[in-house]
Amino acid sequence: MGDPAGIGPEIIAKAWQARAAESLAPFFAIGNAKAIAAVWDGPLVEVRSPDEAASVFAEALPILSVGEAGEVTPGRPDGDSARVALQALEIGVGLARSAAGALITGPVSKAQLYQIGFTHPGQTEFVAERCGVSADSAVMMLAGPTLRVVPMTVHVPLADVPGLISQELVLSKARVTARGLLRNFGIERPRLAFAGLNPHAGEGGAIGREEVDILVPAIEQLRAEGIDAVGPFSADTMFHARARAGYDAALCLYHDQALIPIKTLHFDDGVNMTLGLPLVRTSPDHGTAFGIAGSNQADPGAMIAALRMAQMAAERRAATAAAGVS
Amino acid sequence: MGDPAGIGPEIIAKAWQARAAESLAPFFAIGNAKAIAAVWDGPLVEVRSPDEAASVFAEALPILSVGEAGEVTPGRPDGDSARVALQALEIGVGLARSAAGALITGPVSKAQLYQIGFTHPGQTEFVAERCGVSADSAVMMLAGPTLRVVPMTVHVPLADVPGLISQELVLSKARVTARGLLRNFGIERPRLAFAGLNPHAGEGGAIGREEVDILVPAIEQLRAEGIDAVGPFSADTMFHARARAGYDAALCLYHDQALIPIKTLHFDDGVNMTLGLPLVRTSPDHGTAFGIAGSNQADPGAMIAALRMAQMAAERRAATAAAGVS
Repeated sequence: MGDPAGIGPEIIAKAWQARAAESLAPFFAIGNAKAIAAVWDGPLVEVRSPDEAASVFAEALPILSVGEAGEVTPGRPDGDSARVALQALEIGVGLARSAAGALITGPVSKAQLYQIGFTHPGQTEFVAERCGVSADSAVMMLAGPTLRVVPMTVHVPLADVPGLISQELVLSKARVTARGLLRNFGIERPRLAFAGLNPHAGEGGAIGREEVDILVPAIEQLRAEGIDAVGPFSADTMFHARARAGYDAALCLYHDQALIPIKTLHFDDGVNMTLGLPLVRTSPDHGTAFGIAGSNQADPGAMIAALRMAQMAAERRAATAAAGVS
Repeated sequence: MGDPAGIGPEIIAKAWQARAAESLAPFFAIGNAKAIAAVWDGPLVEVRSPDEAASVFAEALPILSVGEAGEVTPGRPDGDSARVALQALEIGVGLARSAAGALITGPVSKAQLYQIGFTHPGQTEFVAERCGVSADSAVMMLAGPTLRVVPMTVHVPLADVPGLISQELVLSKARVTARGLLRNFGIERPRLAFAGLNPHAGEGGAIGREEVDILVPAIEQLRAEGIDAVGPFSADTMFHARARAGYDAALCLYHDQALIPIKTLHFDDGVNMTLGLPLVRTSPDHGTAFGIAGSNQADPGAMIAALRMAQMAAERRAATAAAGVS
């Protein structure tokens, strides 16, 4: 559910309403039942397990309630709402590692989580730790219907980015991405396109040397490993429709280089998927939107897209496991 | 014409063919007539003045030939083709300052220009100097049907960008942009939206301080001057359709921050317009495309868009001048 004071409860309920039209596999909410009832008057049933949820899904939105069933005021996050979000996340990870097919996380307030003692940068790092995966090996991919991007650095000042780019970083992110595209999307030989750091990808060293010194050798190494890696390309020419047709994921070097194109194209239906984990984890690529929480204005498009992508990846992983392929 | 060995001759000829369908005002080529005849078998008439060009435009593509009428091989730029490009540019500026309504520049090879002694970074700086305008006061704006962007720094390594951002730079670019949107587009009170430098526009200083230290005070100063300036915004959330409806130009801090969104959305019809000049100057926002020159594959869309934008701006300036408004 994410923070129950955000739009999480509303977009979960709206996604359930669209279950038939969108051919959604059974899912259930984890969080505060009152928070959903406060913004939605549809059928809601408390359940205690994924099996029970599946059996009622056709008729009602199943919810697994956590913590004290306190009052939540839409748009007013506090310590209580943050605790619900954290407990829901903890339980969700546990269930996705055992009885559920995938974890879809709703938007949270990091500021509120930090105030109740949350010490991870975000939900992704928390999930990675619970899965025994180093934060560096969990790769954030943002995906929409016509584009997938991987930012190799994320929430750091732009001035720090050039110093963080290393061959090791590029190799690590690219390997996890290539494997993740195979496992979750069934792409046998994913085509990875790398953006340059500098304008025009540095023009052969004339406008910055990171391409020549770091990216070109890293891409050569990846190709030697059998990964279909190309670039570095001038980032501004990588994201129009014809260019996008040439690769399965764009590897970008910093936050805005990756997020500007994906949000320009897919602001309402972008999905955040974490690659490199033993479980399937997706998330709608938007925030808590506290400003419109409780006013029935939230668009469930990204949540529905996150559910569909999780479902597809879970089915693919199950089929691969059944076939005995690792 | 730009470099006659590039796609300039072809897209000029194709734009002329589309003159009726696109309602284009009379225009004429400046460059090498043989270069057009080599890639196009339509009617071509050599002229010696804009007036003469206007009188033949309905029936033939007018061309004002420059320099030695040497042979040009499409796709094979050399010193001769660069000299044609430079002479055409020089004559074009002179005519646009006197007898012609606007200057539209075709794509050139900077490498070839540098080899024949061209000392300006690009055509924009050359035109600015010929107009007696400092290069800093000539502002590059890229415009498509749904977005206008201004990059405040351009061809510098990304690592140098944070050190180049100053209140002075931001104020200067914003003032020229606001005035340019009024003069060329007739927008009485242009709405300028500023991108932050860092992820999430720095989150109040938590991820970089350029927003707090430089952008916020600069924007306050602009507002005090009566300019409708807002931001800084998280750059990734500025370029989807609903966000774009909220401003007339996005002021960006570096090359890719501006060029990724405009080329993602308007790769085939983006126009480069120089603001801050006493003349109207536009350019199709693409390169020489030597690789496809001479093969009849070039898309004239951006050239047509550049002609239309120049025409609109020239008509607006003429009307304003006739009304006695400076």
